[in-house]
Amino acid sequence: MVFLDSRRKKQLQICLQKLGLSDTKSVSWKLLDLALTHPTISREHNYQQLEFVGDSVIRLVAAEVLLETYPQESVGEFAAIRSILVSDRTLAEFAENYGLDRYLLMSEGFAQDKIGRVYWLADAFEALLGALYLSSHNMDLVRPWLDPLLIQKAAEIHSDPARQNYKDALQEWTQGEHKILPQYRVIEQDKNQGYEQRFFAEVWLKDRKLGAGYGRSKKMAEQAAAKDAFFSVVYS
Amino acid sequence: MVFLDSRRKKQLQICLQKLGLSDTKSVSWKLLDLALTHPTISREHNYQQLEFVGDSVIRLVAAEVLLETYPQESVGEFAAIRSILVSDRTLAEFAENYGLDRYLLMSEGFAQDKIGRVYWLADAFEALLGALYLSSHNMDLVRPWLDPLLIQKAAEIHSDPARQNYKDALQEWTQGEHKILPQYRVIEQDKNQGYEQRFFAEVWLKDRKLGAGYGRSKKMAEQAAAKDAFFSVVYS
Repeated sequence: MVFLDSRRKKQLQICLQKLGLSDTKSVSWKLLDLALTHPTISREHNYQQLEFVGDSVIRLVAAEVLLETYPQESVGEFAAIRSILVSDRTLAEFAENYGLDRYLLMSEGFAQDKIGRVYWLADAFEALLGALYLSSHNMDLVRPWLDPLLIQKAAEIHSDPARQNYKDALQEWTQGEHKILPQYRVIEQDKNQGYEQRFFAEVWLKDRKLGAGYGRSKKMAEQAAAKDAFFSVVYS
Repeated sequence: MVFLDSRRKKQLQICLQKLGLSDTKSVSWKLLDLALTHPTISREHNYQQLEFVGDSVIRLVAAEVLLETYPQESVGEFAAIRSILVSDRTLAEFAENYGLDRYLLMSEGFAQDKIGRVYWLADAFEALLGALYLSSHNMDLVRPWLDPLLIQKAAEIHSDPARQNYKDALQEWTQGEHKILPQYRVIEQDKNQGYEQRFFAEVWLKDRKLGAGYGRSKKMAEQAAAKDAFFSVVYS
């Protein structure tokens, strides 16, 4: 049994206030403390198990929110948007907005590692979701404050085509279904900068061409090919 | 608004009885009908959106069940077991045991495709979980019958080292964290069949060696290397 000192508990209460959670009766403070303890503090008692649970929590909530907000969208679009919503970058951004690092116990040296920052912020955010979910075994402590964040972020992604990352979404699918990565073949058709069809990309899965597309940059052509593949093969 | 004919509703009720669900008051029959409708029946109204949700439901329930059943196990072990629990093969096996194909509406021709069978059975099973979760927005219609299945399957996987698939688990991690696949390099050290150290495998992530191991077969050596990587790098 872990007893939290009153200073730590106060700290965790402030953290939940920041999330906007007013009713904290069912919160397990022990789990919450664990969620905000980095492995550099303890190899045994840290956020890793909760992160494992929280990773599924965010995926499920994101799926529900997308279905509720965009009931007419295709599953391909859902998968593309969700892959951005649950990415380390997005989760770290949420964590950063709440100043989650102030409540996370971790070794001084590690905290200053700028490159790792995105990963441990995202991990701690997932662990926080895991702790709140496991406190009540439902989404009552999660959805009230997480839904608005996801809805806003999903709207940004949905309305900005340049943000849509079909390459990640396609890769997630080929990995899940075929255990291999898609391969991109790009050729420069024209040296003219800014020309819409400057690059032509094809995306292949072993011997099977999944899709093709054009773009002003190599990356944009690959995204166009991935989008084509996504809608013609994955969700046809 | 979709109204189900009484024959279809009766069919769906029998399906839930088979799962062992007695209290079906909160079930959305409309969602359940959708979950058991293959895209060959309708391009618009089929199980795809529910499968998208259900995929997260099974991952979350599996995470909870593993944490509850094996609280002392490492996260590496959880990830390895879960990757088998949520695989198409396992889900299709569950679906097969319940005779789920008898309740699934799909075109005759497609139903006879033996190769695709594992995929559509797994998809329909996930969609069923999605429909039950979305009926109540909690796990009340899911965990009572799914937990025992997962606990039994997890015990089989946990107790049989040969079933442990560290390659899949490692790949899931490198994909998630680094967006690349691990590479295996295997050498045959000895032609002696049955020799425990006949093959030696290393697993690399770009220029970084993650782990190494021996085995009687190429596959076993790769699994040993993946396991080494898993515990020395992923969950160290």
